Amino acid sequence: MSAHAAENANVSGWFEGAHHVYPVRVYYEDTDAASIVYHANYLRFAERARTEMMRCLGTEHRSLMQSDGVAFAVRSLDTEFFLPARLDDPLTVETRVDEVGGASMRLTQTVMSAPDMSSSTAGNVASSAADGKTENGRALVQMRVRLACIDGSLRAARLPGAVRAAMTELMNNK
Amino acid sequence: MSAHAAENANVSGWFEGAHHVYPVRVYYEDTDAASIVYHANYLRFAERARTEMMRCLGTEHRSLMQSDGVAFAVRSLDTEFFLPARLDDPLTVETRVDEVGGASMRLTQTVMSAPDMSSSTAGNVASSAADGKTENGRALVQMRVRLACIDGSLRAARLPGAVRAAMTELMNNK
Amino acid sequence: MSAHAAENANVSGWFEGAHHVYPVRVYYEDTDAASIVYHANYLRFAERARTEMMRCLGTEHRSLMQSDGVAFAVRSLDTEFFLPARLDDPLTVETRVDEVGGASMRLTQTVMSAPDMSSSTAGNVASSAADGKTENGRALVQMRVRLACIDGSLRAARLPGAVRAAMTELMNNK
Amino acid sequence: MSAHAAENANVSGWFEGAHHVYPVRVYYEDTDAASIVYHANYLRFAERARTEMMRCLGTEHRSLMQSDGVAFAVRSLDTEFFLPARLDDPLTVETRVDEVGGASMRLTQTVMSAPDMSSSTAGNVASSAADGKTENGRALVQMRVRLACIDGSLRAARLPGAVRAAMTELMNNK
Repeated sequence: MSAHAAENANVSGWFEGAHHVYPVRVYYEDTDAASIVYHANYLRFAERARTEMMRCLGTEHRSLMQSDGVAFAVRSLDTEFFLPARLDDPLTVETRVDEVGGASMRLTQTVMSAPDMSSSTAGNVASSAADGKTENGRALVQMRVRLACIDGSLRAARLPGAVRAAMTELMNNK
Repeated sequence: MSAHAAENANVSGWFEGAHHVYPVRVYYEDTDAASIVYHANYLRFAERARTEMMRCLGTEHRSLMQSDGVAFAVRSLDTEFFLPARLDDPLTVETRVDEVGGASMRLTQTVMSAPDMSSSTAGNVASSAADGKTENGRALVQMRVRLACIDGSLRAARLPGAVRAAMTELMNNK
Repeated sequence: MSAHAAENANVSGWFEGAHHVYPVRVYYEDTDAASIVYHANYLRFAERARTEMMRCLGTEHRSLMQSDGVAFAVRSLDTEFFLPARLDDPLTVETRVDEVGGASMRLTQTVMSAPDMSSSTAGNVASSAADGKTENGRALVQMRVRLACIDGSLRAARLPGAVRAAMTELMNNK
Repeated sequence: MSAHAAENANVSGWFEGAHHVYPVRVYYEDTDAASIVYHANYLRFAERARTEMMRCLGTEHRSLMQSDGVAFAVRSLDTEFFLPARLDDPLTVETRVDEVGGASMRLTQTVMSAPDMSSSTAGNVASSAADGKTENGRALVQMRVRLACIDGSLRAARLPGAVRAAMTELMNNK
């Protein structure tokens, strides 16, 4: 129980090749009166996923700010909404690094419907999960994100070396 | 990797005696310009925790609505804010069932600062977690919640038998 | 048109006796899959109303922080949810000052369903509104709020004299 | 007072040529720990502005759904973030209709920093507002939005004639 607790307490997702995969569950707070996830909330899911990808790579927002004096700001965000997600749906956000520049990065983030691993069909689903595939998942929303590294005055700043190295390595991890 | 993925993909928390414990990480979306978690967002954390506690007990919102025609509505919420949480903080929401009535329930939910189990002091923290204690955690926010079971017309409805039984058993699990 | 623009551009609500009244419209973002306003969002409405009441009284958050070095933090919040609001509903938040202390204040805030003044029954509604009454409005949610004045280190601080004077005068404006 | 109340109670913005202009104030709920508006919240502002533009044109979400059986869903959203907004800032969202199709629409929405009309420099600002210009305003965020008209099953549906006519007229109102 306690080991389970310790393991689950930080949900930072995992890597599959060059992708970071982050699980998200849809709660009432995420939905709207159309009974689907409110469109702006996918951006919140994506920001959580970026945060956890960076945590997996050894970087936290607060320490970035404190030790390097920098933060990341979203500069542009091109979003396509293909299919809606609904209350209780288990989703994943897949994040891929497309480009690492001197003071910016480009990512593609895709919100996928995830097979529910706790469902009554756990047997089948687990075996699919065991393959590390999301073969039952469908792309619901796709975002192309450009992030700028900024300093405390919100001016462009160089990516810290460690972040740059980690992102570049992930990008090349085909 | 895949086993890890499968295990993490549904974060429903765990039980410690009569408490359900649900981990929450603080993201940018949760904070405000005072650099702390915006007060109303603790209610979102609490609602996620209630949802996951019920999922642990075998009940999902959507199936409750479809098979039993009922849902839970918050009727009253007395909240004390003791200490603020900040960006990147790992928190837990501890939920305890205080009373199970015919058409309503009373819960106490406490948002705790959680020892960060992924930190560099993981050794110590893990041993503390191994005790099943949150001995380093402090109560940040406490909510006393009254939930009503309602039907599709938003009128009071009897708690489904299975929910009632599961909640009562948890409550008595001292 | 421009005069209209200038007049509407800042919606700070108005006073009716000792009450501040602040109008709120329900948008998709405020609702959830139960087709009603998500419960935590009433706290956002209430915080907007407190902000605008203080603006009406001559105080802004940012100038408070800059000139007096203080801010307001919610310490406790007892909330009763009576009736739900729905998409497109015009609401008002009525705020009444109950007590002004040295470093804290107590308010009662009530979210009311408001007669829709732009509706096709504008004739009747306008006459009711012309009386300055909310005679058709019903209380949906009631919050008893305790606010603490805090300094930059989140410690209790004395209410600035001007805020204290304005709040006390409003409270006594029966 | 009551007239003022009645006038302000519904803040639907106003038209300036082919633009709809909707005022938004930045509250604590909108900001994050970087002391600026959280990026996803501009999408909420834009959705409020679209809702109010349609209300100005005689259409409400709920009546659209009830009488025509349709709603609008965001299909794509290309967003550029130029400059940040901060707590207490008065903003406007300018909405322009770019294209009206059989079952979809394209809009450009720009979040502008607005001159604060309640400030101590109200004289100058009022005269600028009287010109119908936002000459002191700067574009903070620009969104290109594609909306699809959908039926209750989330399938593409034809735009109701009245909506189509109103949008087309606005678009051509140079």
